[in-house]
Amino acid sequence: MARIIQKYGGSSVATVELIKEVAKRAITAKNEGNEVVVVLSAMKGDTDRLLKLAHSLHPSPEPRELDNLLITGEVISVSLFAMACQSLGEKVKSFLGFQAGIKTDDAHGRARILEVEPARIKTELAKGRIAVVAGFQGINRFNDLTTLGRGGSDTTAVALAVALGADICEIYTDVDGIYTTDPHIHKNARKIDKICYEEMLELASLGAKVMEIRSVELGLNYGVKIHVRHAHSQATGTLIVEEDSDMEKTPVRGVTHSVNEARITLQRVPDKPGVAARILSLISKAGIVVDMIIQNQSVSSEPIDGITHWTDFSFTVPATDFAKTMELMKETGREIEVGQVVGDDNIAKVSIVGVGMRNHAGVATLMFQTMAREGINISMISTSEIKISCIIEKKYAELAVRSLHDAFELEKA
Amino acid sequence: MARIIQKYGGSSVATVELIKEVAKRAITAKNEGNEVVVVLSAMKGDTDRLLKLAHSLHPSPEPRELDNLLITGEVISVSLFAMACQSLGEKVKSFLGFQAGIKTDDAHGRARILEVEPARIKTELAKGRIAVVAGFQGINRFNDLTTLGRGGSDTTAVALAVALGADICEIYTDVDGIYTTDPHIHKNARKIDKICYEEMLELASLGAKVMEIRSVELGLNYGVKIHVRHAHSQATGTLIVEEDSDMEKTPVRGVTHSVNEARITLQRVPDKPGVAARILSLISKAGIVVDMIIQNQSVSSEPIDGITHWTDFSFTVPATDFAKTMELMKETGREIEVGQVVGDDNIAKVSIVGVGMRNHAGVATLMFQTMAREGINISMISTSEIKISCIIEKKYAELAVRSLHDAFELEKA
Repeated sequence: MARIIQKYGGSSVATVELIKEVAKRAITAKNEGNEVVVVLSAMKGDTDRLLKLAHSLHPSPEPRELDNLLITGEVISVSLFAMACQSLGEKVKSFLGFQAGIKTDDAHGRARILEVEPARIKTELAKGRIAVVAGFQGINRFNDLTTLGRGGSDTTAVALAVALGADICEIYTDVDGIYTTDPHIHKNARKIDKICYEEMLELASLGAKVMEIRSVELGLNYGVKIHVRHAHSQATGTLIVEEDSDMEKTPVRGVTHSVNEARITLQRVPDKPGVAARILSLISKAGIVVDMIIQNQSVSSEPIDGITHWTDFSFTVPATDFAKTMELMKETGREIEVGQVVGDDNIAKVSIVGVGMRNHAGVATLMFQTMAREGINISMISTSEIKISCIIEKKYAELAVRSLHDAFELEKA
Repeated sequence: MARIIQKYGGSSVATVELIKEVAKRAITAKNEGNEVVVVLSAMKGDTDRLLKLAHSLHPSPEPRELDNLLITGEVISVSLFAMACQSLGEKVKSFLGFQAGIKTDDAHGRARILEVEPARIKTELAKGRIAVVAGFQGINRFNDLTTLGRGGSDTTAVALAVALGADICEIYTDVDGIYTTDPHIHKNARKIDKICYEEMLELASLGAKVMEIRSVELGLNYGVKIHVRHAHSQATGTLIVEEDSDMEKTPVRGVTHSVNEARITLQRVPDKPGVAARILSLISKAGIVVDMIIQNQSVSSEPIDGITHWTDFSFTVPATDFAKTMELMKETGREIEVGQVVGDDNIAKVSIVGVGMRNHAGVATLMFQTMAREGINISMISTSEIKISCIIEKKYAELAVRSLHDAFELEKA
C-alpha cells in the first residue's frame, strides 16, 4: 500500500465529463490498495472568468478581495469531483485549503505555505476515504483566505506530499511528461523518463509549461518523488527524483531556449571596487530581475584619472524591461564614466542542462563547436555546474536547439 | 449614528452594474454617519448554474459536498461587492460566513445558526470599514461549511443584526414591500407601511416571496426591526416590528390565498381516544406536512360494536402529497373502520390576517357574508387569534381574495 497524492490541472477537470474521468482514475488507484489524496485546480476557464468580472469592477483589485474571489474556482472543482466519486459509489470528502490545514503567510496573491496541518486528511484516509483538496489556496494567521499564485496547485500537492509523508506525488497534466526539448521545435524531442530536481529547475523554461518551479524546489528540499504524467493516458511520464549514479552517465538531459531576454553592456567600466554593485542596485531597486551577469577579466591601459584597469560589464533582463533598463544604465553610465552603454533585445538564450556534465569533459567544447559549425556567433557565455548557456542572435535560436539536440544525441534513451 | 445591516438579494446583485449600484447605496448609508454591514446572496442565476453542474454528476449529491459547492456563489458576490466599493474609494472587507462567526448545527443544506461571534465584524466597523458578509452560509463544529437553506441570506442578516445589536435590518429586494394582497390578483393591493412579526408570519404566502419566514421568527424572538424595501428605489418599504396599539385599530392587515393544498376527509370515524393520533402519525412518518386539521363535535347514533359517537376528521396536505396521503388513509380507514375516505385537491385556502381582529367583533361574520354574497361555498374553516382561513373551491380563489380585500377596505391606509 502506498500513499499517493494526485494533482489534476485545470485542463484535466475542464468539464463534468473530464471530472468523471479523473475521478475514475483516483478510484482505480485506491482500489489498487493505495491511500489517495487528490488536489485540484479550478476548471479551465473559471479563473479567467472570475478575473474578468473582477477587472470589470476595479483595474487592480485589492489582493485580499481577489483571493476571496479566486478561491471559489478550486472549491467548485473539488465539490464536483467528490460528487463524481460518490456517483461511482466511492467514499470521499472535499476540503477547502484551510480545512486541509494549509497555513500560509500574509502575501495575498502569492502566499507561501508556512505549515501544513493535515490531521483531517489523515483521519479521512484512515476511514478509507479519498480526500480531495482545493489547490492554490490556504489561510493566514488572521483567518483570511490566501492564494499561492501561479501554479499554486502544484505547490499544494507537493506540500501535502511532504506533510503526509506520501510515497509519490503525481502531477497530472495535458502532456506526457518533460521532453528533451520543445517537440514543436525538434521532431526528435524525446520524453525523459527520469530527471533530477536540479535538472528540472535548470530546465525551467521547458518545465514551467508542465509544472510550477516553486513546487520542484519544495520537492528537492524534502525529497518528494514527483511523477509528471498525462491525465488521460496510462503511459508513465517523467519521474522527478534525487540524482543517482545512473543519471550521471548522460552528459546532457535537455536543451532549452528563451527569446524573452535582452542584453545590456556597459563598455570600458572603471575596474574598481563597488562598481558592479552600484550598477545592479539601481536595477533591483526598479524591481527588474537580472538573469545572466558577465564580467570578464579587466584589461589595463594608460592611467586616466588614476584608473589603470577597465572592463566590460554585461547582463540580461526580461525583454519587457529592456527600454527602462537602458534608460537607467545610460544615466548610471554617465555618473560612473563608462565608455558606452549598448544593448540588444534581438537575442536568444540557448542552454544545455545535465548533472552528467560535471563528469564529462568536452561538453562545452562540443556545444561551441556545434554552434560554430552552424555559423552561429556566441555573444555571451555563462555556466553553472550542470548548465551552459549561450546568448546568440535571436533568429538562430531554433537552429541552435535542433543542432545541439542532434549533437548530444538526445533522441537516444 | 445607527448600526445598519443591509441585505441584498440575488436579483439586486445579478450583474456587475447592479453590484456597483448597491455598493453606492451602502456607501451612502455609511457617509450619512452609520456603521454598515452588508449581507449578500449569490448573483441571480449562479446558484442554479452550480446546481445544474452538481446534478449532471449526481442525482442527489451528498449535502456536505453540495454545501461546499453552493457557498461559492455568495463568496463571489461579496468579493466583487468589495471591489466595487474600493473602486469608489471606500474602505471595505469581505467575509465568508465562517469568518463573520456564523456557527451552525450539522444539518447540511438546511443548517440552523447556533451562535454568531461577530468579533471581526466589530473590529472592521470600529476601523470605519464596511463589512460585507456572504449570506446563506456558516461553519459547524467539525469545521465543515454549511448552508442555511432557502432564503438563508435573510437569516444571516437578521442573526447578524441580533449579534451586533443593530438598529435596523434592511432587506433589499426587487419589490417595494409587503402588500395587502398579491397585486397581480387585485389592482387595489396597497403597500403596507408597518406590520407586526406575527402578522408577517401568518401572511407567509404573501411574505415568502419577499422574505424567508424563518428570519421573521428570528426577528420576532429578538425584536429586530426589519425594513423590507426595493433595492433600486429610495421609497420606504414595509417595516416589520413589534405589535403596537396603533396596529390594533386595523382589523385585517392582509388577504392571502394558496392553491397548493389538498383536503382529505375520513367520514364517520369512531370517536374514541387515540384515533386522531393514529391517523396523523402515519402521515408524519411519511414525511408529509399537515396544515389545517378539523374535527367537529361528534354525533351519536345507535351503538355499533359498542361505539356510540362518530365524527368526521379532515385535514389538508400539500397538493403534491395528495395521492400518497389518500393511499395511506384508505389503508388506515380500513383498519380503524371509518365510513369512507374522500379527498379533493381542487381547493384553495383563503385567509385574512390581522392582530386587530382580536378586538374587533364581527370580522368572521363579514368574511363569511362576503363569501356568501359571491356564492362561494366554504367547506372548512380554521381560525387562530389573528387569522381566519377558509377552504373553498379552487376556481373561486381570486374572486374571494378580491371581494375580501374590498369588504375590509384594505385599499385604504
